Amino acid sequence: MLYFECDYMEGAHPEVLRRLVETNMEKTLGYGTDAYCEEAREKIRAACGAPEADVYFLAGGTQTNALVAYSFLKPCQGMISPVTGHVNHHESGAVEATGHKVIALPASEGKLSVAAVREYIESYWADENYQHIVEPGMVYLTHPTELGTLYTLPELTEFSELCRKYRIPLYVDGARLGYALASDANDISLLDLARLCDAFYIGGTKCGAMFGEALVVTNRNFVGDLFSIIKQRGAMTAKGRLLGVQFSTLFTDGLYAGICRNAIETASMLVDILRSKGYGFLAYPVTNQLFVIMEDSKVDSLRKSVSFSLWERLGDGRSVVRFVTNWATIREDVARLGELL
Amino acid sequence: MLYFECDYMEGAHPEVLRRLVETNMEKTLGYGTDAYCEEAREKIRAACGAPEADVYFLAGGTQTNALVAYSFLKPCQGMISPVTGHVNHHESGAVEATGHKVIALPASEGKLSVAAVREYIESYWADENYQHIVEPGMVYLTHPTELGTLYTLPELTEFSELCRKYRIPLYVDGARLGYALASDANDISLLDLARLCDAFYIGGTKCGAMFGEALVVTNRNFVGDLFSIIKQRGAMTAKGRLLGVQFSTLFTDGLYAGICRNAIETASMLVDILRSKGYGFLAYPVTNQLFVIMEDSKVDSLRKSVSFSLWERLGDGRSVVRFVTNWATIREDVARLGELL
Amino acid sequence: MLYFECDYMEGAHPEVLRRLVETNMEKTLGYGTDAYCEEAREKIRAACGAPEADVYFLAGGTQTNALVAYSFLKPCQGMISPVTGHVNHHESGAVEATGHKVIALPASEGKLSVAAVREYIESYWADENYQHIVEPGMVYLTHPTELGTLYTLPELTEFSELCRKYRIPLYVDGARLGYALASDANDISLLDLARLCDAFYIGGTKCGAMFGEALVVTNRNFVGDLFSIIKQRGAMTAKGRLLGVQFSTLFTDGLYAGICRNAIETASMLVDILRSKGYGFLAYPVTNQLFVIMEDSKVDSLRKSVSFSLWERLGDGRSVVRFVTNWATIREDVARLGELL
Amino acid sequence: MLYFECDYMEGAHPEVLRRLVETNMEKTLGYGTDAYCEEAREKIRAACGAPEADVYFLAGGTQTNALVAYSFLKPCQGMISPVTGHVNHHESGAVEATGHKVIALPASEGKLSVAAVREYIESYWADENYQHIVEPGMVYLTHPTELGTLYTLPELTEFSELCRKYRIPLYVDGARLGYALASDANDISLLDLARLCDAFYIGGTKCGAMFGEALVVTNRNFVGDLFSIIKQRGAMTAKGRLLGVQFSTLFTDGLYAGICRNAIETASMLVDILRSKGYGFLAYPVTNQLFVIMEDSKVDSLRKSVSFSLWERLGDGRSVVRFVTNWATIREDVARLGELL
Repeated sequence: MLYFECDYMEGAHPEVLRRLVETNMEKTLGYGTDAYCEEAREKIRAACGAPEADVYFLAGGTQTNALVAYSFLKPCQGMISPVTGHVNHHESGAVEATGHKVIALPASEGKLSVAAVREYIESYWADENYQHIVEPGMVYLTHPTELGTLYTLPELTEFSELCRKYRIPLYVDGARLGYALASDANDISLLDLARLCDAFYIGGTKCGAMFGEALVVTNRNFVGDLFSIIKQRGAMTAKGRLLGVQFSTLFTDGLYAGICRNAIETASMLVDILRSKGYGFLAYPVTNQLFVIMEDSKVDSLRKSVSFSLWERLGDGRSVVRFVTNWATIREDVARLGELL
Repeated sequence: MLYFECDYMEGAHPEVLRRLVETNMEKTLGYGTDAYCEEAREKIRAACGAPEADVYFLAGGTQTNALVAYSFLKPCQGMISPVTGHVNHHESGAVEATGHKVIALPASEGKLSVAAVREYIESYWADENYQHIVEPGMVYLTHPTELGTLYTLPELTEFSELCRKYRIPLYVDGARLGYALASDANDISLLDLARLCDAFYIGGTKCGAMFGEALVVTNRNFVGDLFSIIKQRGAMTAKGRLLGVQFSTLFTDGLYAGICRNAIETASMLVDILRSKGYGFLAYPVTNQLFVIMEDSKVDSLRKSVSFSLWERLGDGRSVVRFVTNWATIREDVARLGELL
Repeated sequence: MLYFECDYMEGAHPEVLRRLVETNMEKTLGYGTDAYCEEAREKIRAACGAPEADVYFLAGGTQTNALVAYSFLKPCQGMISPVTGHVNHHESGAVEATGHKVIALPASEGKLSVAAVREYIESYWADENYQHIVEPGMVYLTHPTELGTLYTLPELTEFSELCRKYRIPLYVDGARLGYALASDANDISLLDLARLCDAFYIGGTKCGAMFGEALVVTNRNFVGDLFSIIKQRGAMTAKGRLLGVQFSTLFTDGLYAGICRNAIETASMLVDILRSKGYGFLAYPVTNQLFVIMEDSKVDSLRKSVSFSLWERLGDGRSVVRFVTNWATIREDVARLGELL
Repeated sequence: MLYFECDYMEGAHPEVLRRLVETNMEKTLGYGTDAYCEEAREKIRAACGAPEADVYFLAGGTQTNALVAYSFLKPCQGMISPVTGHVNHHESGAVEATGHKVIALPASEGKLSVAAVREYIESYWADENYQHIVEPGMVYLTHPTELGTLYTLPELTEFSELCRKYRIPLYVDGARLGYALASDANDISLLDLARLCDAFYIGGTKCGAMFGEALVVTNRNFVGDLFSIIKQRGAMTAKGRLLGVQFSTLFTDGLYAGICRNAIETASMLVDILRSKGYGFLAYPVTNQLFVIMEDSKVDSLRKSVSFSLWERLGDGRSVVRFVTNWATIREDVARLGELL
């Protein structure tokens, strides 16, 4: 069986694992108050050029997104998301469970347009009955998006300007941020994210960590005490140093983006094969997720020997399927997949 | 000034008021346990042909809708609504504040289509990752709709069959139900609602009561004790008999639909005037709300002497405006409006 | 049957009712934006000596308390209440349903002591693990208390100083405030409440209104937009002027405290009778609620001809029962009750 | 420095870590659908003698407790807990944040008494106004308790009978369950828990796992789909097999209770030393947490070389401090602590 199902099928990158093993029997205090967490925070602040930023370590992406909604949004505010955004579609209603609407706007190739968001916000404030309508209280983007595409630095800059004009936070979900940073098509750095966003998270689970995400908060105007909120939401890792050790390792010697480069290279190899065989793509492939249009019959036969996601039945005899590479993908597997395609 | 702004500008219908005055100094127990409430419940059950139904009296529509979401939906379930539905657009996120997503589907003239709902539900259950997606847990309709249109009995029957097939409640928001019942275009009776829906409410606030809505529940498979939930949500009227007296009056001698008939007749008179002057409508007018397309300049001049809602700027020099009649509308006012148009 | 069950058995005070009838057919805009609401707000601000205060009209007490919890408390904050406080015991968990703990502290005769609250808050902040514990985020008092007792001005002043020291709001539930204002034992005025509290509500439902409470907010540091929150929570009265008319009437010519005086006088008459017959009290009676200790056999026989609350079985052959008077209580009824005791 | 601060200062037990390393590069599907999770579930079901039980793997205790409250309690229901229970005191209001009251009853040595719970429930249902009061909807116990004490099998049996009589779930928080199972004073087995409780969790984080808890559910009458709820609450571990591998290892060859035995033996060694030096205990020490009464001056000097918790200042020159042992505690450290005492 070949595995291109998702980017979290293995455990940790060997270097991360080595450090977890090495520190396993050390005794540290809990809840992120240990020296490894502090060390990791410092490295992340340095990598982001944001010495004043708060950094919180969390166990997963849905947890992080819901936490941000809960702690940043005021009552009656909602979170603007592309209709294809993870918070809108694949988190079992986690944001709504915190009491807030996801305001889903149309997306193109997984991306929100600044124009559409601007128009929505302006229309909201122009409406005579705006107080009866959920207030746009945050903009949520994913980078890379759920369709593997990337925002550009000018786009992110415009989103930032728009959000600051309306005094609402801009938040970027970076579940796969490492694969953006490693992509040749990307022009948004960690420094840009820290400068332009109010909060974003650096995904670990899908990018080399055993588990864990690092939430970077540059704007402290949120409601309530994040430490307590993390505890309250069951998102506090008792042995916080597990996260500190991992992120400290990932942010040493450029490991984070470095190990993700393999995913980009193997994805690129796969794109070439797919193109050579005439397959089309749902979205232009630039990171580690490829959304490929395929005959249903081919999908069925391929599933016997390859694990991958069936994204969407198009209803015309074709489907969209997703192939994902990651830091651990082996070139031989890509080649074998190529033969089966 | 002429008033066509909404259908809740006056107090109570004189007959309702008379009964409130008459009973004012009587002493009754609170919380809906009095004889007036019981009497009103019996009359409503009789009018609905539903001797087993539970009837709860509440103070307002948003309160009732949020209560139904809170008490009927399980965690991770959402409420399907037309995108123009009141719960989706004009309740400040009341449903989401109970922790549940409003699943907004496209609407035509304010109405959901059964086909669209069926497709959504079927797609949901066919999705391999359905457990990561908010489950469709209820269908919410408004009758008449927010655009004044009406579902037909065959449509409601189909919705009912679909919901029963998938074992989810069908809930009808009847904030203006009296105006549906009084419309010549309507073929859905209270008996149909009780037979086909799991819950619906009979709007009082906009239909002759001073305030109040009667929630009729025919399916008792909801989660939790509704009496306590009503109390918990601050929706319990201490002097419950105020609601009992009003609904008992409205359900005596056909008063409810009877008094709403005036709104239909005056609306019809206004439709004729508007048509004769060449105005177009956003939705075919059959109840007491008329959505009229008007030049912006006309809107501006008319607002000086008439109170009405600016529904939507079309952006092409025209707007949609809303004129509303009710049980208290005077024919002379319609005629005077006609002269100004 | 004689009725001493509660203070909300009748409808509205005749003068309030008269104004509702008089204004019934006037047309006004909704949601509290009408002239009657504005007039009532002005009169209340004047009576409170608080020209800058925000005044919101709501339909009931539980609704108001939950609204205050929801809009004033930050995540992870709780509301300190006496264990006998209405929010802790008789609102079906309304505050907790907004996501916040009620921190119940011991009470004496229904009253919290400043010393106990101070000690709790100081211990909280001294605890090494305070971030794992719900933060005291508000102090909730009732005046008169659930046992009919009164705070003194020095006590309220101390609570105010304590809350300001710790920058948390002091909130007073005045469901029966009129009966405090009319009591000879009371030394807290509306001006004191406005000066010392961050928010309090002036109860209408139990004090002469048909229904309604006036929430006075002097400190605007709450989270979110109260108008929208009121809408979201289903606490917005569409025909807002119903509340405006009532409170404007109650705050004309001292009607509010004036009509409550009858309750104090009839309660006092009943206290004298009870004392003369040797009955004891659970709490010293100074307002319109009397908590009387009575043999169980007497309770049972009295219930045949008098409606009153059985407060608590003491388990020793005696019970605590509650007799309540109000603005409408007739002296003849008190005399007849006296004969039956 | 000597460490007796808590039982989660190290990483994983070496055998658990070995299996995590060994399986690290295997590719598995996510969300607990892999073979390791299935294997762990089977082993746990076997150990509990509950072949029909559902087993869910979660990342932490607060997360698990809040999940149980959210998915088992109906609106207006609360969770009965000893006042010293973790859900009441040390989870930042996690249960209340799900909308439910923690009904805190007095505790003795950390334990609830069946009699007190019975009386509370009976009083509730006997109250004429019970519908205005939060309904007791679950009983929450911790075994061992927060003070290290143990329930007895007769006590647990009585709790079970009481809960079944009133048809409410009995839930046991087993954050430190391994230390109960390894204690000579314990007579409650996994089979008893599965037989008598509706749900309980087997703590991993404090008992040898790197992280993770196993929630065992024998009664499926909860509200909603637990898989989706876990996802919604951000409690779904993407790489679910991390938890499967750990619990499969812990439930092989009796490892779970076996490794916890060391904590009991070293705690017992420490108890002997403390007794010999005349120290008293807050609660009778039978598991791995010792609550010792100590002069404040001794506390201050000891803290220079030993890490331990200051539990409570008694205010009379003495304090309660907590020493905790775990699976990794070394006898030499206990001996050195003994010398310092």
